[in-house]
Amino acid sequence: MAREAIVDVEGESDFSLENLPYGVFRLRSDARAQIGVAIGAYVLKLAACAEGGLFDECHAEVFSAAAARRVFGQPTLNAFMELGRPAWTEARRAIQTALDKHGSGFALLREAFASGEANRFLCRAEDVVMLLPVHIGDYTDFYASLQHASNLGAMMRGPGNELMPNWRHLPVAYHGRASSIVVSGTDVRRPRGQLRPDEADEPVYAPSRLLDLELEVGVLIARDSKRGEPVPIGQARDYLFGLVLVNDWSARDVQKWEYQPLGPFNAKNFATTLSPWVVTLEALEPHRVAAPAQQPPVLSYLDEGEQRSTLDIALRVLLNDTVVSRTNFRYLYWTLEQMVVHHTSTGCNLRCGDLLASGTISGPEPSSYGSLIELCWRGTRDIVLDDGSTRKFLLDGDAVSLRGRAGARGRYVGFGRCDGRILPATEEG
Amino acid sequence: MAREAIVDVEGESDFSLENLPYGVFRLRSDARAQIGVAIGAYVLKLAACAEGGLFDECHAEVFSAAAARRVFGQPTLNAFMELGRPAWTEARRAIQTALDKHGSGFALLREAFASGEANRFLCRAEDVVMLLPVHIGDYTDFYASLQHASNLGAMMRGPGNELMPNWRHLPVAYHGRASSIVVSGTDVRRPRGQLRPDEADEPVYAPSRLLDLELEVGVLIARDSKRGEPVPIGQARDYLFGLVLVNDWSARDVQKWEYQPLGPFNAKNFATTLSPWVVTLEALEPHRVAAPAQQPPVLSYLDEGEQRSTLDIALRVLLNDTVVSRTNFRYLYWTLEQMVVHHTSTGCNLRCGDLLASGTISGPEPSSYGSLIELCWRGTRDIVLDDGSTRKFLLDGDAVSLRGRAGARGRYVGFGRCDGRILPATEEG
Ligand SMILES: [Ca+2]
Ligand SMILES: [Ca+2]
Ligand SMILES: [Mg+2]
Ligand SMILES: [Mg+2]
Ligand code: NI
Repeated sequence: MAREAIVDVEGESDFSLENLPYGVFRLRSDARAQIGVAIGAYVLKLAACAEGGLFDECHAEVFSAAAARRVFGQPTLNAFMELGRPAWTEARRAIQTALDKHGSGFALLREAFASGEANRFLCRAEDVVMLLPVHIGDYTDFYASLQHASNLGAMMRGPGNELMPNWRHLPVAYHGRASSIVVSGTDVRRPRGQLRPDEADEPVYAPSRLLDLELEVGVLIARDSKRGEPVPIGQARDYLFGLVLVNDWSARDVQKWEYQPLGPFNAKNFATTLSPWVVTLEALEPHRVAAPAQQPPVLSYLDEGEQRSTLDIALRVLLNDTVVSRTNFRYLYWTLEQMVVHHTSTGCNLRCGDLLASGTISGPEPSSYGSLIELCWRGTRDIVLDDGSTRKFLLDGDAVSLRGRAGARGRYVGFGRCDGRILPATEEG
Repeated sequence: MAREAIVDVEGESDFSLENLPYGVFRLRSDARAQIGVAIGAYVLKLAACAEGGLFDECHAEVFSAAAARRVFGQPTLNAFMELGRPAWTEARRAIQTALDKHGSGFALLREAFASGEANRFLCRAEDVVMLLPVHIGDYTDFYASLQHASNLGAMMRGPGNELMPNWRHLPVAYHGRASSIVVSGTDVRRPRGQLRPDEADEPVYAPSRLLDLELEVGVLIARDSKRGEPVPIGQARDYLFGLVLVNDWSARDVQKWEYQPLGPFNAKNFATTLSPWVVTLEALEPHRVAAPAQQPPVLSYLDEGEQRSTLDIALRVLLNDTVVSRTNFRYLYWTLEQMVVHHTSTGCNLRCGDLLASGTISGPEPSSYGSLIELCWRGTRDIVLDDGSTRKFLLDGDAVSLRGRAGARGRYVGFGRCDGRILPATEEG
């Protein structure tokens, strides 16, 4: 039976007592960024809790009260992430106990509740503005879904040549743009860009007509690795702090014209949207499942052996409130651990706060494709919305929302929302 | 006639009184990072100078003494860069006057010299360790040399198909890796990586056999642009603070196997070396020359009209002290201003401290190619060094040094050194 939280948590909430994701927010009335944990429709204020003694009973050698005050007093999660898994586990245990209605932790919170002063430690989610949860040094986007790579390959190179020869041997990736990463709820302006319409000989600089979304999941890297020292596969999981949803907005017409030979650039660097709550690997651990078998076998530096596994996270894409795709994180061919290992395989160093995104997650069914270019099969099929209208690519005013959750009603481990609305292109300056 | 500096400056020095590049250093005896200006074989300590009143006579509305103390007290140049061109011009004028033997500025420095206490404000370059000059948020690498793109295209796709159809229409670029940017003098370990030898059917994870250098010039971006708002071509120059030399180390065998369809990733993300002294656009202004004509004409958002120009900077590559290439910045087909404009054309925002590198700079003659893969023409020609040995790609222990300078003896505006030595690959873990 699910534990009961000190505040009401609706059965449909993504933020059950099993979840406890970390985020950075500010009160609407206050410019100061602070760290919080989501619980139902509330946010636990961790700086206030640390000052109030929530972490005083933690094992000081792994997570001292002083460390708690320091890391939860920051405007990003980076300092907390750098402490490593033993500290995260200890912090999670303390927070879960404090929020458990029948738990015994953090007397001050219980007293505050009894005396009607809970707002010292808790605020309502509707009273906060979410911010980016981490300082992201570098952002890398992978291409780890077999179905997505096959779909795009089939469109570009025709059936029989879906996958490049390297695809099953390494997790293909490219470097993304960190400056334009924004938090859920930020409007996205339709980009102008250089593109060459199919019917034209010469390129033009014009608003993108093929604006797309990409449903992805990103992992935030917990710690620095050393330059020149690849991370061994057995240590890769230690680098994973938690997951967010990622919408890698893509201008397909810009991409088609620009991407040879160095890959996508302006087609993707105008905006990337993250969900604000970081769902920890700890919270997702009960939802670990077998990962797809890899054929042919991978090289030994990428071979996970018995450890190979993934996470069962149901994902959805909503376009103007119509669910246009249902897929799952577990479909990914390459695991997060393999991404860490391959990323560092030549000696590239990771830093605490780096974002590694999965690439578009498409499942085997057409209804489980994670981008519009796949759902409309390059413009040859209509996507029908609940209001009767149809889409191929995004129109001005369209609202996209990504969702994801593991578990079952009453104890969901979910991500909340990853939302963005399309603003019309500006007049050319 | 050249002005004379308060300290002896050798005629061959890159750091004449006309140059005055900014850098970040620490004394060998001290961990603290500080900002300096190079003059001959000396470094002017700007925090001490600001405290000592060097900037007290500046026009306070563009560069106040308080602002000078604040920005020159930082461990990076970012805060100074953000002040903008009027402040840079004012700071440069004050520094140049102070260092001019026959100038009248900064009495305290003259007094310190007279009383043998110049080390309050100046230290010897040999007593400092140079550090990265800026916090780099994002690093972008362009592909702006017509000859380089043509050479690589000819090798990959054969004569007649050298250039992709987009190449003359837009400055091709990809996002690079910021975490592995290192300062001149940092050793570079030969990467292992996944590659498929020409003679093999299957890939292996092995030390790169085709380790290369790339001679590039990078520009450091001075200020933030707004997400969603492309920078107009007429404003692009305001975003340029100064230039550094860039060695974009590249593992060609890794690159060949991995780069389709999303571009280079592990082949280039293991290390990128910068020269430590940032040569300002102000110092280079007397060396402005016409830029190559562009045919066909570019789209209007990229059209510089009468403003179109570039810089005459002679560049060299030394391999174990043999000059293996002599080229020039002015050969680049795309200007730095066009790079800024195209980068932001879809609304991608730049941030103060971003690095935009030019891509390998190759001139029209084989002796002016900026990478070994071009100099050895994909392994078909030997590169002969002064010691009689030959190279195609880099061997363990090889020392690479990039150099660049504008102007003439006694008033060079140069970059100093951009050095790196190859360490052998580590044993596989
Ligand atoms: Ca993507
Ligand atoms: Ca390059
Ligand atoms: Mg994006
Ligand atoms: Mg590099
Ligand atoms: Ni940063």
